[in-house]
Amino acid sequence: MNSGTRGVYRHRDLDPILNPARVAIVGISPSTRGAGARALGQLRLLGFEGAIDLVNAKYTEIDGAPCHPSIASVGHAPDCVIITVPQVAVENVLLDAASAGAKSAIIFAAGYADTGREDRRGQQERLAAIALDTGIRIIGPNCLGAVNYADGAALTYTNTPVLRIDDRIVAPQARAVGLVSQSGGLGFACAQAVQRGVSLSHILTSGNSCDVDVADYIAYLAEAPACTAIACVFEAVPSGARLLEAADIAFRAGKPLVVHKLGTGEGGAAAAMTHSGMLAGTHDAFVASLEQVGAIMVDGFENLIETAAYCAKADPDAAGGVIVLTSSGGASVMAADKAELHGVELPQPDENIRAAVQKKLPDFGTARNPCDVTGGLANDHDGYFACVDLLLSDPAYGTLVTAHPYSVHTANRVRAFGELAAKYDKRVCNVWITEYLAGPGLIEAERDPNQMVFRSMDRCFASMAALRDWAASRVDRLGVSTGGRIVDREAATRAGTLLRACTDMILTERQAKAVLAEYGVTVVTDRLAASPEEAADAADALGYPVVVKIDSPDIAHKTEAGVVAIDLADRATVLAAARQVLANAATHAPGARVDGLLVQPMIPAGVEMMIGAKRDPVFGQMLVVGLGGVFVELLKDRALTSVPVSPAAGELLLERLKGGVLLDGYRGGARVDRKALGELIARVSELLADHGDLLDGADINPIICNGDTIVAVDALLVRRS
Amino acid sequence: MNSGTRGVYRHRDLDPILNPARVAIVGISPSTRGAGARALGQLRLLGFEGAIDLVNAKYTEIDGAPCHPSIASVGHAPDCVIITVPQVAVENVLLDAASAGAKSAIIFAAGYADTGREDRRGQQERLAAIALDTGIRIIGPNCLGAVNYADGAALTYTNTPVLRIDDRIVAPQARAVGLVSQSGGLGFACAQAVQRGVSLSHILTSGNSCDVDVADYIAYLAEAPACTAIACVFEAVPSGARLLEAADIAFRAGKPLVVHKLGTGEGGAAAAMTHSGMLAGTHDAFVASLEQVGAIMVDGFENLIETAAYCAKADPDAAGGVIVLTSSGGASVMAADKAELHGVELPQPDENIRAAVQKKLPDFGTARNPCDVTGGLANDHDGYFACVDLLLSDPAYGTLVTAHPYSVHTANRVRAFGELAAKYDKRVCNVWITEYLAGPGLIEAERDPNQMVFRSMDRCFASMAALRDWAASRVDRLGVSTGGRIVDREAATRAGTLLRACTDMILTERQAKAVLAEYGVTVVTDRLAASPEEAADAADALGYPVVVKIDSPDIAHKTEAGVVAIDLADRATVLAAARQVLANAATHAPGARVDGLLVQPMIPAGVEMMIGAKRDPVFGQMLVVGLGGVFVELLKDRALTSVPVSPAAGELLLERLKGGVLLDGYRGGARVDRKALGELIARVSELLADHGDLLDGADINPIICNGDTIVAVDALLVRRS
Repeated sequence: MNSGTRGVYRHRDLDPILNPARVAIVGISPSTRGAGARALGQLRLLGFEGAIDLVNAKYTEIDGAPCHPSIASVGHAPDCVIITVPQVAVENVLLDAASAGAKSAIIFAAGYADTGREDRRGQQERLAAIALDTGIRIIGPNCLGAVNYADGAALTYTNTPVLRIDDRIVAPQARAVGLVSQSGGLGFACAQAVQRGVSLSHILTSGNSCDVDVADYIAYLAEAPACTAIACVFEAVPSGARLLEAADIAFRAGKPLVVHKLGTGEGGAAAAMTHSGMLAGTHDAFVASLEQVGAIMVDGFENLIETAAYCAKADPDAAGGVIVLTSSGGASVMAADKAELHGVELPQPDENIRAAVQKKLPDFGTARNPCDVTGGLANDHDGYFACVDLLLSDPAYGTLVTAHPYSVHTANRVRAFGELAAKYDKRVCNVWITEYLAGPGLIEAERDPNQMVFRSMDRCFASMAALRDWAASRVDRLGVSTGGRIVDREAATRAGTLLRACTDMILTERQAKAVLAEYGVTVVTDRLAASPEEAADAADALGYPVVVKIDSPDIAHKTEAGVVAIDLADRATVLAAARQVLANAATHAPGARVDGLLVQPMIPAGVEMMIGAKRDPVFGQMLVVGLGGVFVELLKDRALTSVPVSPAAGELLLERLKGGVLLDGYRGGARVDRKALGELIARVSELLADHGDLLDGADINPIICNGDTIVAVDALLVRRS
Repeated sequence: MNSGTRGVYRHRDLDPILNPARVAIVGISPSTRGAGARALGQLRLLGFEGAIDLVNAKYTEIDGAPCHPSIASVGHAPDCVIITVPQVAVENVLLDAASAGAKSAIIFAAGYADTGREDRRGQQERLAAIALDTGIRIIGPNCLGAVNYADGAALTYTNTPVLRIDDRIVAPQARAVGLVSQSGGLGFACAQAVQRGVSLSHILTSGNSCDVDVADYIAYLAEAPACTAIACVFEAVPSGARLLEAADIAFRAGKPLVVHKLGTGEGGAAAAMTHSGMLAGTHDAFVASLEQVGAIMVDGFENLIETAAYCAKADPDAAGGVIVLTSSGGASVMAADKAELHGVELPQPDENIRAAVQKKLPDFGTARNPCDVTGGLANDHDGYFACVDLLLSDPAYGTLVTAHPYSVHTANRVRAFGELAAKYDKRVCNVWITEYLAGPGLIEAERDPNQMVFRSMDRCFASMAALRDWAASRVDRLGVSTGGRIVDREAATRAGTLLRACTDMILTERQAKAVLAEYGVTVVTDRLAASPEEAADAADALGYPVVVKIDSPDIAHKTEAGVVAIDLADRATVLAAARQVLANAATHAPGARVDGLLVQPMIPAGVEMMIGAKRDPVFGQMLVVGLGGVFVELLKDRALTSVPVSPAAGELLLERLKGGVLLDGYRGGARVDRKALGELIARVSELLADHGDLLDGADINPIICNGDTIVAVDALLVRRS
C-alpha cells in the first residue's frame, strides 16, 4: 500500500495529532526568531492546556523550562512531535519519534518533493515509508502545521495574527468554518478572516502531504463537532479516490464542503504537479468529480471564505424565501440582477404586510420585493427597522438581503438587524458594497450568529443558490436508493472476454459494437462483405439506402480517410462506392489490415450525440458526453462524470450541455427521449467502471437520436497498452 | 431640443457648478441634522475657499453668519445654488435662482421620476424645461451632489466619511480616479475607497439627471487635469448617443473609462427604467456600444474601483512585461492560472539575472517566472528584496506582481517595493490575497504612486490585459484614418428610394435583395416565375440544381411554412416541387399575396452566417452578426455593434463569436475570407446607418460562405411602421 491507495483517515486517526494531550517540540533553541520558540509561543498564545516537552541535545534548559536531549529521554511518549530542525536532520528525528512511541509528527521543513528534484522526492518517500512502517501520522513536510481553535491547540510556527484579536483568544462560535489548505501560505491568508470576525474551528495545512493530506483533513472535520462547514483550497492531491471518499463523508455528515481548486490553466497545473509531486490532473475532472459527491465549487480564491462562512451559519433546511431591502435604488437593481442570474426567487410579501410597510415609506417608496425604502427613510432608523420588522415577520421569508453603501449608519443597523433576526430566527445577509472594507459594523455582523457578510452581491446570491442546490441534492441522494447496476454481471463478463480477446490496440467497429451490445447499447446492424459484389448483395438484403465502410483496426478516423460512403440508394451506387472505399483505404493507409467492408442500413438524420471515455490521471476513467460535430469538436461543449452513474445522473449530465436544447426538438425535429439517453449513458458508464483498466479510450460517435430511437452508428474502443 | 438630443456638456459648461467661486445654500436651518447645515458642514470640512451665502426667509442669521431672505437679496449671483428645501418648494427656488442669474443648481430632493409616477415625472420635466429655458445647469434631483477634491469643493449633504481621514483633508494624488455614479448611494459606496488610500479627484453623482447626466460628467473629467482615469457606474441614461460621445471624448483624451453597468437582467433593467424614467435598454447593447468607443467594461461592482485605480496609476504606454514574484507556491500557481486565462505573457528573465537570483534562493527555489522565492526566503527581508531588485532591473519587465498571504511582513515589504519601484520607475501590483482586508501596509500600498492593490488575482491580470488592449486600440483608432464610407451616396439614395417604394411592411425577398445589391451585397440571382411550368423553364435556363421558393410579402418564415424546396436536380423534380410549394403556401397562409415563384441556383454548402438588425431603445439600430443555425438560434452566439462600422471593425466582430472557428475551415471546408466578410458587415452597417429610420428589422440569413465566395441566399427586411 502506498499513500495513494489507502483509504481516508478518520477523526479518530487524526485526533492525537490535532488535539494532543502532550506535545514535544524538537529542535527548539533560545532564539525567539527560531521556528521552535515561535511554535512554543503559538501554543501558549492560544492557551494550550496539555503538556509541552522541549527537546534539543544542545540545551538543558530553555527560558526556564527543562530541555531534553532526545524524545526518548522525556519519559512520556508524546501525542504530537513538532519537528523544527533543519531539513537534513528531519528524518532521524522522525525515526526517534516513532521509536519513542510518538503517535504523530508535524514537519515544517521544505526541500522535498516541492523542489521538483528526484533526490528530494526520494527523501520524502522515505518519510512516507516511515509513516507506513511505524504507524506514526505525519503532517507535512513543507507545511505551516495546524490550528485547532476548538480544542485550543496551535501547532504552527507562523506568527500570522490569527490566534488573538485585541488580546483575546480567538474561539470558534457555535457555527464555524473548518479550513483545509494544501498551501500553508494560502491557508493562513484565508485564516486571517478572523481579523474581521469570521469564526473558524480549525486551520489545517497539509503541504507536501507525505502522509496526511487534504482528503484526510476533510474527513476529520466531517466528524469534528465544532465545524459546521468546510472550506478547502488545494492544487493537487495524492489520490483522487481518497478526495472523493472524504467529500462523500462530509456530504453524508451534512457539512457543506466548499472548494476552490487552483491550477485551472495548463501552466498552473503543471507548476502544481512539479512543486508538489502530487496529481494535478485536469481542472474539469476535479470539478466534475467533486460536484458529483456534493462539493460546492467556487471560482475565485477570494470567494472561498465568504461562501464557506455563509454555509457555516445558514441552515440549509430553514424555510422561507429571500426578501431584499435597501435604501438605494442602485443596490436594489444590483440585487434584482443577481437574483435573476442565479435563479433565486424574490417572492412578493403578504398583502397585509405589504400595505403596512407601504404606510411607513415616503409616498414614493416601494414596498415590493426588492424593497427600496429610499434614501429618505435611510436616516430614520426607527422607520427603517419598523419595515424590517414587518418584512421579517412574514413567514414567506427566511432570509433578508441588505446592502450597506455608507459606513455612517452601518454599525447601528447591524445591531438592529441582529436583534430582529434573533427575534424571528431568520438570517440577514449584509452585502458590504462600500469600499470601506473594514468599516464600522463589519466585525459585529460577522460575529452575529444570524448574520452573514458578503463583499459582492453576486457572491451573496451565488452562495444562496449553491446551498439551496446542495440541500436539494442531499434529499435526492440520501433519500433515494441508488438502485444498483443495470447491466447484469454475466453480460459484463462476456464483454470483458471479448475485450481481452482483441489482439489489436484498436478494436474494429464490429468488435467494439459487440462489446457495447453486451452492455445493452443499441448499435447499427451490419454485414461484413469481402468484396464490392458481396457488399452489393448485403445491401440488397438489408434494403436501401445503406452505408458502406471499411472494416479495419488500423484506420481510426474513417471520415477523414474517405472510407465511409453514406446514403447509397441502389446496387450500382453501392458497387461504385465500395470500390472507391477500398481504393481510398489503400491510398490513405497502405499497410493497414483490411478485414472487409461493412454494410449498414442508413440511419435517418437526427440529433447526433457522442459518449466517450477520457482517462484522467487523478480520477481514472471519466465519461464524456456531448453533442456531435461542432459542439464537441469546436465549442468544447461537453459534460464529464466519473463512473458509474445512474440513469438519472446521466440525464442530469445532459442539462449541463449548452447545446442540450437541441434534444428538445430543433427545426421540426422530434424531441429526443432524455430518459433513454440517460440510461444509455449509465450503461456505457458501467462498461467503463467494469473494464476501464482494459481501455485507453472510447468514442461512441455518432449516436443518432430520433425521439426514443437511439442508435450508435460508429464506435471506437482502444485497448490499454 | 430635449435633454435626450442635445450634445454633451463640456468642462467649461460644468466648471461653474463643480468648481464654484460662490455658493448659496437655500433652505438651510440651524438644525445640525438638516440637509442645509450638513451641506455647509461638508463644504467647510473639505476647506472650501470661495464665498458661501446662506438663504432662508425664516432666519436672519444662522450660527453667527448672515442669512438672506432670497437668492436675489444676496447681491451676488451665485455660481452654484445648493437647494436643500423640501421637494414641494424646489421648483420655486430654482426659478428664483435662475432669475437671480445663478449659473447652476444642485437638487437633492427625491420624489420625481424616481417614483415611477406620471405626475412626478411631469414635475421633473418642468425642472428640465427651466434648465433649457434659462440656461441654468442642474445636478439632480434625487442625487447626493458632487465632491471636487481637486478644487476643494464638497457639494453634498451626505456625511459619509470621504472628506477627511484621521483629521486630514483628503487630497488627490498626481494620478487619481474621477468617479461618476448615477446612484448617490453607490457613488459614495465607491468613494469610501479613500478610507483605504485610493486617490480620487472627484465624486460626481447625477441621480435623476434632469439636466446634467453621467455622460456630461465623463466629458468633464476627460478635461479635468486632476483625473487620470474615470470610473463610472450607472443603470440607465437619458441618451445613448451622448454617452458614446462622452466616452469617445475620454478615449481621445487618453483617459481610460472603466464602466460597470447595473441592470444586466430583465428585472433589474425594468426596475432601473421605472425608477429613473431613463433608458435602460439591453445590457448587451450597452456593452457592445461602449466597448466600441474604447470603454473598459467590468463585471462586478466590487471590481470597479480596483480596476479604475489601476488604470489611473499605470502608464499604459510603459514598456516591459510582467514578472510574478511570491513566497508561496500556491500564489504562484494562482498567478500562472490567471495570466494564462487573460492572455498576459510572463516572459522569462534575462539569463544573467536569472542566475544571480538563483544564487540568492534556497537550493530548491525557482528563479523562473513566476518566481517562487519559497517560504524560506519569506523571512529574510534583505534576501527577498535582493531578488526583487535584480528582477526589476531587468529591462524585460515593467510590472511586478506579488501576493501577500500574511499580514506579518506586509508593511515592510510594501515600503521596500515602493523604494525599488521608484528606483526603476516600474510598477508593483500587490495582490491582497489575505482575508485581513484592512491589514498593515494596505493604505501605504494604495498611496504609493508606483503601486497598485488588488483583492483578487483574477482582477489583477484582467486589469492588466484590459489596459493593454485599451492602449493598443488607441494606437489602432487614433493612428489610422477611419477611411470613410464604402457605399457611394448615389447607391444609398437609390436603395432609400426602393425602400420607400415598398408599400408592404415586409419586403419580398426580391425587393430586399434589390436594396442589398445597391449596397454591394452579393445576393443569389433569381428568376420570377408565374407558374410551375415557368419555374421549370427558368430552371432549365439557370442550370441545375436549383431552389424554388414562394415570393410573398406575407410569409416571413419560409422554411417553417414549407415553401422552399432545395437541391432540385431536374425539370420533373422542379415541376413537382413548385406545385407542392404553391399548395403549402395556400395551406399555411390562405390569404397571403403570392407574387410568384422564385427560382435560384443552388449555392453549394458552406459556412452559414447571418447579419441582422436589432433596434435598441437606447442606441437605435444595432447590427447583429452570427453563424447561422444552432449558433444564433440556440446558443445565442452573436456579436452586436452600433452602426456604421469599418470593414476592420466588422472583422473584429467575427472574433467575438464562439463559433467563429468554423470560418477557418471545418471538416475539410475552405477557410472563409474573413476580410471579405468584414467588408460585407460594413456594407450592411452602412445600410442600417443610412436608412435605419425606415427599417424595423433585417435578417440576411443564410449568407453562405465558401472561401471568398460569400452569397446572401435569403433576406428579410421589415419596414418601420
